[in-house]
Amino acid sequence: MYLFTEIGSNVKNMKQLEYLVLAKQTKKVINELRQGVIKPYTEVIDVCWGDPHRAGIKPLSFVRQVLAACLYPQLLESDKLLVDVRQRAKRLLEACDGGSVGSYSPTTGIPEISQKVSEFIKKRDGGVPSYPENIYISPGSQWSLANILNVLVNPEASLRTGVLTPVPCHITTITSLMGMGAVVIPYYLNEEQGWTLQVEELQRALESVKGVCNPVALYVINPGNPSGLVQSRKSIQEVIQFVSEKRLFLLADEVYQDCVFGETAEFVSYKKVLAELGPPLSDTVELASFHSASKGFMGECGLRAGYVELVNVDPTVMQYIENLFSTFSGAPTLGQIALEVMTNPPQPGDPSYPLYKKEMQQIRTTLVQNVKRVYEVLNSLPGFSCQPVEGGAFAFPTIHLPPKAIQRAKEAGMEPDTFYCLRLVEEAGLLISPGCEFGQKEATYHIRFCIMTPQDTMVEILKRLSNFHTKFVKEFS
Amino acid sequence: MYLFTEIGSNVKNMKQLEYLVLAKQTKKVINELRQGVIKPYTEVIDVCWGDPHRAGIKPLSFVRQVLAACLYPQLLESDKLLVDVRQRAKRLLEACDGGSVGSYSPTTGIPEISQKVSEFIKKRDGGVPSYPENIYISPGSQWSLANILNVLVNPEASLRTGVLTPVPCHITTITSLMGMGAVVIPYYLNEEQGWTLQVEELQRALESVKGVCNPVALYVINPGNPSGLVQSRKSIQEVIQFVSEKRLFLLADEVYQDCVFGETAEFVSYKKVLAELGPPLSDTVELASFHSASKGFMGECGLRAGYVELVNVDPTVMQYIENLFSTFSGAPTLGQIALEVMTNPPQPGDPSYPLYKKEMQQIRTTLVQNVKRVYEVLNSLPGFSCQPVEGGAFAFPTIHLPPKAIQRAKEAGMEPDTFYCLRLVEEAGLLISPGCEFGQKEATYHIRFCIMTPQDTMVEILKRLSNFHTKFVKEFS
Repeated sequence: MYLFTEIGSNVKNMKQLEYLVLAKQTKKVINELRQGVIKPYTEVIDVCWGDPHRAGIKPLSFVRQVLAACLYPQLLESDKLLVDVRQRAKRLLEACDGGSVGSYSPTTGIPEISQKVSEFIKKRDGGVPSYPENIYISPGSQWSLANILNVLVNPEASLRTGVLTPVPCHITTITSLMGMGAVVIPYYLNEEQGWTLQVEELQRALESVKGVCNPVALYVINPGNPSGLVQSRKSIQEVIQFVSEKRLFLLADEVYQDCVFGETAEFVSYKKVLAELGPPLSDTVELASFHSASKGFMGECGLRAGYVELVNVDPTVMQYIENLFSTFSGAPTLGQIALEVMTNPPQPGDPSYPLYKKEMQQIRTTLVQNVKRVYEVLNSLPGFSCQPVEGGAFAFPTIHLPPKAIQRAKEAGMEPDTFYCLRLVEEAGLLISPGCEFGQKEATYHIRFCIMTPQDTMVEILKRLSNFHTKFVKEFS
Repeated sequence: MYLFTEIGSNVKNMKQLEYLVLAKQTKKVINELRQGVIKPYTEVIDVCWGDPHRAGIKPLSFVRQVLAACLYPQLLESDKLLVDVRQRAKRLLEACDGGSVGSYSPTTGIPEISQKVSEFIKKRDGGVPSYPENIYISPGSQWSLANILNVLVNPEASLRTGVLTPVPCHITTITSLMGMGAVVIPYYLNEEQGWTLQVEELQRALESVKGVCNPVALYVINPGNPSGLVQSRKSIQEVIQFVSEKRLFLLADEVYQDCVFGETAEFVSYKKVLAELGPPLSDTVELASFHSASKGFMGECGLRAGYVELVNVDPTVMQYIENLFSTFSGAPTLGQIALEVMTNPPQPGDPSYPLYKKEMQQIRTTLVQNVKRVYEVLNSLPGFSCQPVEGGAFAFPTIHLPPKAIQRAKEAGMEPDTFYCLRLVEEAGLLISPGCEFGQKEATYHIRFCIMTPQDTMVEILKRLSNFHTKFVKEFS
C-alpha cells in the first residue's frame, strides 16, 4: 500500500498524516509518565526526525560562539572568546544592515553570505565555478524546493504536472508536491541492492504515466533519506543522461552531503558530475541543488536556514523564482550566519581549529559507531533486515510482521507499521516513524529512525527495539 | 491610479514591483559612492521598511542577553549576566527539545511560549480569556496571514473569493492575496479625517463587488500601516458589527500595538472590544489577530517570529489551519524566544528592569519626538500635507506634484511618485517608498517612510527631503 495516493491532491484535503496519530499517542504516554504512571521506561526517546540536538548531540562551539557574539556584541570585548570568533562575528555584523542581526536581510540572503556559500561550493567541486547570484538562501531546503516547484508545477494545465519521486522519500517533499497539485510519479529504489537508483526503473516510472500527467522534473535525494544510500559517480552520470534525454529538471536534495559513513562511499555532487560530463550536458541540464544548516554535523535545525544553487536555469524562469523568494522575508539572519560558518569553518592554523576539529571528530566517531551497531544488531534480529547506512541521518530497515499483527492492524483501520510504531512507543517508550510515511512496496514494512544520537542513546534505542520486537512477534505468532 | 489592478492575479505573473525599480537605482547609487563618485551625501539613508535596527535604533539589552545565553549556555555560568537573564534563559532552554535552540520546535510553536503569549494577551485585554491552543507561532505575521488566507480563499470557485482591504495598505498583504487568486476589494481610508476607517465606505466597497466576487473577509490594520491611525474603540465596535452583519471573517493586523504616540490615542485590541460587546457577537465573530517580534520597540525583524490568535473559529477550519502551519517547520527557535521576551518583559523588582525601562523610555522619547518633528516639518513645507502619526512605524504624507513632473513621469512610463522617489535617492541619498505601492486615490500621490530612527537621523532625513522637494518643485514649475 502506498500512502501518497491516500493524501488528497490539495493541502486543504490533506489527511491526518500517520505521524499525527503517533504524536498524539506519544503525548499521552509522556503525560502518563509525568503523572507518575509506572512504565518499563522513565522517558520517551524520540528519533523520528533528523534532529541531532534533540537526541543529545552537542552543538559545535565555534558556531554558537560566533552566533552569541553577533547577537550580543558586548561579547566582542571579552577575551573569553578566541580572536577568530570575534573577527568572524565582526565581519558578519558588518554584513547586516545597521550592524544588527535584528534587521531584515535581503529576501534572497545576505550577499556576503551567498558569496561565501559559492566559494564553498566551488572548493567542494574541485573548482567548478559557482556564482552567488545563482544561490538563494531561504528558511530551509524544503522552503527552497517549494519555491522551485511553484514555478515548475502548473496547477491549471489540463494534463497535471508530474514529478518523479523516489520511494522511499521523506514526507515533506511529498506534502509540497501534493499541496501544489502535482502528481507524484513514484520510482522505486532497489532495496535488495542497497537502495540503489536504477535508470530502468526511472524509465518504467516515466512510461507508466504516459498520457496521465506531464512529467517535468526528477527529484533525487543523495545521500538518501530515508534510504541511507550514497550514490556512486556512475549512478549520478546515468541519472544526468536520463534527465537530459527526457528533458527533465533535476532537483537534487543534497542536504546530507557531509554525512557519509560508508568506508568506500564518497559524496560527489550532481553539479560536479554534470561539469565533468562536459558540453552539451553541462550547458543544458537544469539543476537545483539543496543544502541546509539543519543537516550535517552542525544540526542547527532550530535556526532555519538553507540554500539552493541553480544551474543552467533559463533567465526568465530565474526571474520568477527570484520573485517567489522575494514574496516573504527571507531566512532568519542567525540561520544565515550558521550557514556561513557551516560552509566556511575554522581552518588549520586558526585559534578555534583544534576544538572544532576535535568536536567534529567526536561526532563522526559516534555516528560511524552508531551505524555499525545498527547494522549488526538489526541484522542479527529475526524478522529484521537492514541495508548498510552509507550516509544521511537515518536507518530504514525492513520489518517482517507476523500475519496476525497485520490482520490486527487492518481491523484497527491502520497501516501495519503504524500499528507497530504505536505499540513501540506505548510499550518501550521509543518513538520512530513507520515506513508507510515514506512509501514502500506493497506488503513490505519498514521503520525509520535517526542515527544521529550519542552512542549510549543508540545502545538504549537498539535495546528497547530488540526487546519490544521479540515480544511483539511472540504475541502475534 | 491603483497599482493593485496592475499586478497579475497570480504570483507567476507578478509585475516587477515599484520597489524593485527603486532598489536597483539605490544599488547603483551605493556602488557609485563606493567607487568614490562625489555626491551631495556620503551614504544612502534607507527608511523604506519598518526596520528600526537598520536605521540605528539599538536592540533591547535584556532580549539580546537572554538570546545569547540560550545560544551559548556557557554564558549562564558567568556572573556578567544578571540573575533574571540567566533564569529566563535556563527556563527557555528547558522548553527546547534536547535543551538546545538547535532542535526543531513543534511546527505551531514551543508550547511554553504559546502559554506565555496567551498570558500576555489576557493581561493586555483586562482579563479576557486567551487559550494557547488558539495561538499559532510562525516565522512572521505575514506568514500567519498567508496560512489563514489559504483556508479562506477558494481559487477554484466560479465566483472568486474577495477580501476587503484598506487603501493604503502595505504591499505584502496585497501580494499574498494576489498570489492566492483572491480579489482585493479596496476600501478607502479617509485621509482628510486622519485616515479614519468609515463603515459607509466598507458598505460601498462591498456593494461595488456584488456579483463580481464572493467577499469572505475584512482585513484591518491597527495601528495603521502606512496610515499611522490608531483606531478608536467606537470605530472598532462599528467594524465588528459590520463584519457580523455581513458574515465576514475579521483579519486584524495589530503588529504595531505597542507603537502608539498620539497623546490621546490608545491601542485597544479587536479581541477586547469583541468581548466587551458581549453575546451574540462575542461568541460568533471569527477573528484572527496578528502580532510579531519584528515590530514594537524590540524590532527584531531579522529573527523571524510572529503569532496569530484565532477567536471563534470553527473547529474544522482550525484543523485545516493547523495542518497548514504544520506543513513546513515552524518559526526559528530564537525568534520564538524573542517573542516570549516581548510578551513577558522584565517587571519592576527584577534585576534587569531598570535598564530595560530606561531603554524603552529612550526609544519612546525618540519616536514621540520624531513623529512631532515629521508633522511640523512636512506640514510647513509647500506641497506637503501630513496627517498626525498616532501610531505604527510610518509617516504617509501627501505630496502635491507639479503637473510637469507628472507629465515627465508618464513619459518615462512610471508612476509619478515612483519618479519622485527615484530622483530623491539619486539626488539626496534618501530611499523611501512611493505611495503607489500601497494604493492611493486617483491623482493623489504619497510617500512612505519609517519614523523609527535615532533623532539625528530623522533630522537629516527631513533636511534631505525638504531640500530635495524645494529643488524638485522648482525644476518642474
